[in-house]
Formats: sequence, structure tokens, C-alpha cells
Amino acid sequence: MNAREFRRRGKEMVDYVADYLEGIEGRQVYPDVEPGYLRPLLPTAAPQEPETFEDIIKDVEKIIMPGVTHWHSPYFFAYFPTASSYPALLADMLCGAIGCIGFSWGSASEATLVALLAARTKVTRCLQAASPGLTQAAIVEKLVAYASDQAHSSVERAGLIGGVKLKAIPSDGKFAMRASALQEALERDKAEGLIPFFVVATLGTTSCCSFDNLLEVGPICHEEDVWLHVDAAYAGSAFICPEFRHLLNGVEYADSFNFNPHKWLLVNFDCSAMWVKKRTDLTGAFKLDPVYLKHSHQDSGLITDYRHWQLPLGRRFRSLKMWFVFRMYGVKGLQAYIRKHVQLSHEFEALVHQDPRFEICAEVTLGLVCFRLKGSNKLNEALLERINSAKKIHLVPCHLRDQFVLRFAICSRTVESAHVQLAWEHIRGLATDLLGAQKEEKADRKLK
Amino acid sequence: MNAREFRRRGKEMVDYVADYLEGIEGRQVYPDVEPGYLRPLLPTAAPQEPETFEDIIKDVEKIIMPGVTHWHSPYFFAYFPTASSYPALLADMLCGAIGCIGFSWGSASEATLVALLAARTKVTRCLQAASPGLTQAAIVEKLVAYASDQAHSSVERAGLIGGVKLKAIPSDGKFAMRASALQEALERDKAEGLIPFFVVATLGTTSCCSFDNLLEVGPICHEEDVWLHVDAAYAGSAFICPEFRHLLNGVEYADSFNFNPHKWLLVNFDCSAMWVKKRTDLTGAFKLDPVYLKHSHQDSGLITDYRHWQLPLGRRFRSLKMWFVFRMYGVKGLQAYIRKHVQLSHEFEALVHQDPRFEICAEVTLGLVCFRLKGSNKLNEALLERINSAKKIHLVPCHLRDQFVLRFAICSRTVESAHVQLAWEHIRGLATDLLGAQKEEKADRKLK
Repeated sequence: MNAREFRRRGKEMVDYVADYLEGIEGRQVYPDVEPGYLRPLLPTAAPQEPETFEDIIKDVEKIIMPGVTHWHSPYFFAYFPTASSYPALLADMLCGAIGCIGFSWGSASEATLVALLAARTKVTRCLQAASPGLTQAAIVEKLVAYASDQAHSSVERAGLIGGVKLKAIPSDGKFAMRASALQEALERDKAEGLIPFFVVATLGTTSCCSFDNLLEVGPICHEEDVWLHVDAAYAGSAFICPEFRHLLNGVEYADSFNFNPHKWLLVNFDCSAMWVKKRTDLTGAFKLDPVYLKHSHQDSGLITDYRHWQLPLGRRFRSLKMWFVFRMYGVKGLQAYIRKHVQLSHEFEALVHQDPRFEICAEVTLGLVCFRLKGSNKLNEALLERINSAKKIHLVPCHLRDQFVLRFAICSRTVESAHVQLAWEHIRGLATDLLGAQKEEKADRKLK
Repeated sequence: MNAREFRRRGKEMVDYVADYLEGIEGRQVYPDVEPGYLRPLLPTAAPQEPETFEDIIKDVEKIIMPGVTHWHSPYFFAYFPTASSYPALLADMLCGAIGCIGFSWGSASEATLVALLAARTKVTRCLQAASPGLTQAAIVEKLVAYASDQAHSSVERAGLIGGVKLKAIPSDGKFAMRASALQEALERDKAEGLIPFFVVATLGTTSCCSFDNLLEVGPICHEEDVWLHVDAAYAGSAFICPEFRHLLNGVEYADSFNFNPHKWLLVNFDCSAMWVKKRTDLTGAFKLDPVYLKHSHQDSGLITDYRHWQLPLGRRFRSLKMWFVFRMYGVKGLQAYIRKHVQLSHEFEALVHQDPRFEICAEVTLGLVCFRLKGSNKLNEALLERINSAKKIHLVPCHLRDQFVLRFAICSRTVESAHVQLAWEHIRGLATDLLGAQKEEKADRKLK
């Protein structure tokens, strides 16, 4: 769908929304369907080829609306109100278009936290069952979680919030967590009487898009009965392409897995997708059932009450976005999108290789290139300062070990080879200016 | 704004969005503004009278866009991508219109949890400063949080997640938490060596919209150095009307306060507004600063990094919705909206009073009426079953002490007196059927 079609379909959608809200009184406030009605009406997989918008909007009335409780019907007197107004709808359209991440991102953080809390509950109950005298506090005091030294800061934050120790496992030369370093940490901690209970493995780290070795880490977690959470926030989207699936090998050991379709799968923020191997591990940690939230299908097993899966009780109807995107791009369209980004990052990588003043700092696997000027951290900090002050392009840095590194991430839906070329010329130009200025400075200092 | 104007403005907005995305390459990717640029451009208060949409959309270009980092520019190579696509935008428009709460609601839950975690950190650090030998676990084991027996289930959940005890304070005859019951619990727990650290007071409980007595509870919390969190998720919106402000008396004792504009202030889900008296109490609990999230204004005090205020790192640009709504309704329009709902609930209350078979179960203050048939819980369960099976209106129940009670909440933006009247006639009719059927049953049993 291009801008031209969006103009047409967007206006149709505006009319659909206005028709819906004007006619809502005529709809039965509470649906007739039974839990599970939707599953047989949906295909088991996303379409390979894109579908048309007409087909989708027809299905909205045919299969989605019959399952909707019309919260904005004037015959809805349940719970408390949930707001709705035309100005707010207009603002949300604009909010979606701007699509900025109000600093800085990642409901992957929430998924990590939820998994950690579930694991904490599980291990606590398990140990208390074995030794009924143990208090929760006595157990929690000894719990240790682990993640690679390359893991996202949100993992450390989850540890803080969960009130447990978090230890960083030194990554290898490719910035990956490996068996030996993890095993060593576990043995040392167990010898000190601590209780390892949670490991976060990252597929596609924030700093350099490195991949922890699941085939090595998984079996250790399995053997030690430690919860394995896989954070694939960015890279997860790439696994729709068969050529990247091997990076997932070992995922069968995971107890929970998360990726963010709102990063790289064309579904506007926010949208995180989390899986758990055993859902009762999650719901067991959080479940509470006050009478005003009770419903007749509570214990039937037919429905999934996501309020037991997350921290806030409420959630938006986010699956609608995924459904529209999957259908209108088709699996092939989505794969093409991922592949194009990966190709562009390799194009940038090749450009960097051609200039001997620069070096590539980590293997380029997906859409991220880590690079720097050969030389000091100070030099690279100055280069980044010049790049971001010029405001022609926007980059952020990272640290890899003790090196200050520039991250070039392929981000925009509309980024083309021309933009990448232009960006590289721009960076090279600024580097030339910077190195020239430094040379002059040195010469000046010698003269004095 | 009515549906007719929404059709017009919505289509203009679709064009604005398409223009924005088509022209994004021409915009400077990173803004020139300095932190704080926006404040002098905005009025200090919401407008009393509604403004026009033209004025608002003009201000979008004039004052909002200059501050935006254009995440979807093809010259944005920072972080990782954040998704954007036309199908997702279309789906989000529909999602906003349906505006259903995917079971069940309330980012107020997250606010309570965040406040509890901040309070936990604060008290732990404070006690460790006094006695450096104390472990975190030894302290957390003794911490106790309190809330009225009428508080929302999310408070109990926050306790579970935070790993601390939560005790229910018996409410008084009007379902309010009072000084005596709270003081008694605190004294008893302190005598047992426990450490009271957190109290949640609710303004407008979920069950019956009762109000904890802040003027009594506040001074106790202050004296005992216990964090006071005020949960006004639903009722908070009503405080824009002077006649309801007295229910807030004592709020000056609160350490944190939350209400949900997405409930009753016409801002579509989700949108929770949380205040903290001392922001460093919150940020101190969660703050972590990896290099890829560092920025030059980090420590200037000029900007507020909300990622330190919440559990997920990312947040949507929700303030845009509030801004549109405040301007297009004006304070007067919003007050009129609240007052209309309150008036409708009193209208329903009067109808219930007129039928001697029914009773009102709690004082009606805002938009909620708790009522029941005089008689057994079983009778009322049967009535609710008939009401919700007919699917003409939708209600949920609650328990008040040992009574099963029906909640009639004024919810919809479009609900009018006619709907309330119709709903009451419908309920009365079903009650007549039910009582008739029961009489027959009894007669049958006597005959046998």
C-alpha cells in the first residue's frame, strides 16, 4: 500500500469509523459468540501473497465485529467508562504517523521482567514445597539471574525491580554468550550457596546485533533447571526468512521468548509478541480474580486471559495491526522487506571496507553495522558529535568492550540505497574535515 | 466535534499523515530545539472554551513538529528500526474506534506497582543507611503495604510482584478506609517487628465508588513516614469540577497520585496520568543509563526522562491525545460531560428508589449506582444472568461485604436519559419475570 492508496483507504476508514460510532446503538452490546469462535474463521498461517484491503475490511464485519463487546454503546453500563472521542481518535492517527518512541523503546523490557517474575515465583514455590520452613525472603536473597555483558539494560532493570541479583556473563570474541563462561558462573555461585534461577539469552543484541549461542546455553539451562528467556526484540522479525532461521537453533530450550514486531515487522509501536512454554508458570505468578472481573469462561480453558500475562490489566486491541499488516504485505512482502534492509546494511559495510581510515567492529548479520575511525575513542566521539550536529542523518553510539563505536542501523521503511550512499558520503566528508582539523592542530602545537 | 465533522477532519488528517510521510525526507531528521522549548509556546492551562480544529492542526506544524525526531526519515540510522506501515495505521484507527479494553483495564495498576516499587527502594535504602549490616532481603521480608478491603485487585497484585506483604484494612459503613482501622493495623504490625512502608488510598473504588478518607489517612502516613499512593483511576477526572474537589481534600499528603483520563476524560485508551511528589524517589528506583540511551541533556535537569518513571522503556506519544481533547472540548466542555454522567446516575438512582422491590447499596456520588433486588444473593445472581443473557444492556456485579450487588455505571460518551430509562424498564421487566417464575416454583413445590 503506497501513500496514494492510503489516502483513499484512510478516508474510507474514517467513514467506517464514523458509521460504526453513529450506528453503535443498533448493535447488540455484548456478543453472541463462544470462546474459540474466531480460530476456525482464520487461516492457520499468514498469507504468502498480499491480500486486498477490500477483503480485509469485509472480514472486519464478517469475523471481527461479531466477537466485539461494544464498549461505546450507550447500553454499556459495566465496569467504568473507557473514554472515546473524535479529537482523541484524530490525535492517535497523527501519533501513529509520527511513530516516535518517547524515550526510548522496547516493551521487550516488560517481557523480560514478566518472565523473571514468573521464574522467581516458580523457583520460590518449588523450594518451599521441598522445605516448607523456608521464607520467601530467604530464598529471594539467594536467587541469581544471568545475562551476557552485551544484554540490554532492561535486563539489569528487571533484576532491580524483581529484587534479585543479576550477574553479567563475559561474552566471547564475537560478543556472544557461550557455554563455558555461563557454566563457570553457575558453578561458582552454587558453590557459594546461591541459587541460579534465570538466564536471558539475546538474539540480536542492541550494541552490535550479536547472537548468544542457544545451542550451548539451552542445554545448560535445561540441566540446571533454570528458566531460559530469549530476548529477540529486534532480530526476531528476521526469522520469517528461512535463511536466518539457523540463528534460532536451540530455541526449543527456551521457557519464554519475545520479539517486537513494532521494531522490524511493519507493525507500528507498540506491539511486542511474547511466548511462554508453560502458560501456567506466568499466570500462576500474577493471577487474581476479583468478582467484577469474573466471567463464565474463566476456568473452561477455552480462553486466554491476557491480564494474567502482563503487568497492567488493560491492553489495546493490538492484534488488529498485525492482522492488517500480515494480510496486506503477505509473508513474501514481509520477507522482501527484511531482506532489503539486510542487503542495505551489507552495502554500507562494503562502503566502510573501501575506506582504509575506517574499520568494521562486529560481524554484520542483519541490518546493523558497527564501525569506527581507526584511532582513539575521543576521535570517534568527535566524529559522532559532528554527524549528529549536522542533523542530516541520525546515529547513536555504543561501547564494545572499551571501544567507542558508531552504530549504523537500517531503520526507515522508505530507506533506499541512495540514502545509504548519501549518508556514507556525508560521514566520509565529516571524517575528512575532522582528521584535517586534527592534523592542523598537531602542526600548530609542534610550531609552538 | 460530531460524526459529521469527524468525517471531514479525519479525511484531512489522512491527507496530513500521507503528506507527512511522503515529505518526511525533506524534514531535518533531528530537531534543532533545546529542552524546554515547548513550555513557553503552550498556555499554562487548558482552554475554558473549545478551540477549532484549524487552530490545533496549525499548531501541530508550528509548535509540535519542530520538536520531533523523525524516526521514519530515511536518514534515521539510530537505535534499531521502529515499524511504520499504512496497514498498521489503518488498523490503529479502527482499534481506537472500537476502543475495547482487552481484558480488562487499567494502567492504574502499573502506577500502583511503580509507586510500590519506588517506596520499597526508598525504605530499603533508608534502613540500610541507618544499619549498614542489613540485607535487602532481611528488610523486604518485614515490609507491609496496606489498602482498604475495597481497593482494586491490582493493589494485591502489586504486592505479589513486589514481593511484599499486603494487608487489607476493614472499611467503614460507607466502604471508606478511616484513621482508626489503619492506625490499629500499623500498631499491631509494628509491635510484631514488621515495617509498614506503603498505603494505597482509593478515591472512587471499583466496587461502589467509595472514597477513602484522605484527611484522616494522610496525616497518619505522614507521621509514620509511610508512602501514600492515591489511586483515583476513575474518579480523578471528576475533580475538574469544583463541586467534586472536596473529595480530594488531604491529597497534599500523597507521595504519588494516579488517575486514568482514558476512563472518564474522553481520551481514548490507553492514557494514565501519574504524579509523584519527589521524582527522584521514582527515578532512583529504576534509573540505568547505558551509552546507547545517553544524551547531552541527561543531567541538566532540563528534561524529564520518562523511561525512568515506568516499567517498559518505550512509550507512545500519548500527550497528543490529551492536548487535542483539552483544546477541542475546553474545560467547560469536559466539565459538562462529567456533570451529565453524574446527573444520569442520579436519575437511575431515583428510578431504583421508586421500585420497592429494589434497594440502593452504596451512596451515589459520581457515575456509578450499586443496586440489587431485596432478597438473596442467589436471586440477584439470577437477575444479572437474565440481564446479561438478553444482551440488550451490559452490566457487571460486585460484592459489598457478603452481598452480591449489581453495578450500573454510566459509561458511553453518547448515553442519554432515554437509554437509562430504557435500561431500567428492561431490568424491571426481567425482575418481574424472575420473581414471577420463582413464585410459581414455590407454589409448585407446595403442591408436591
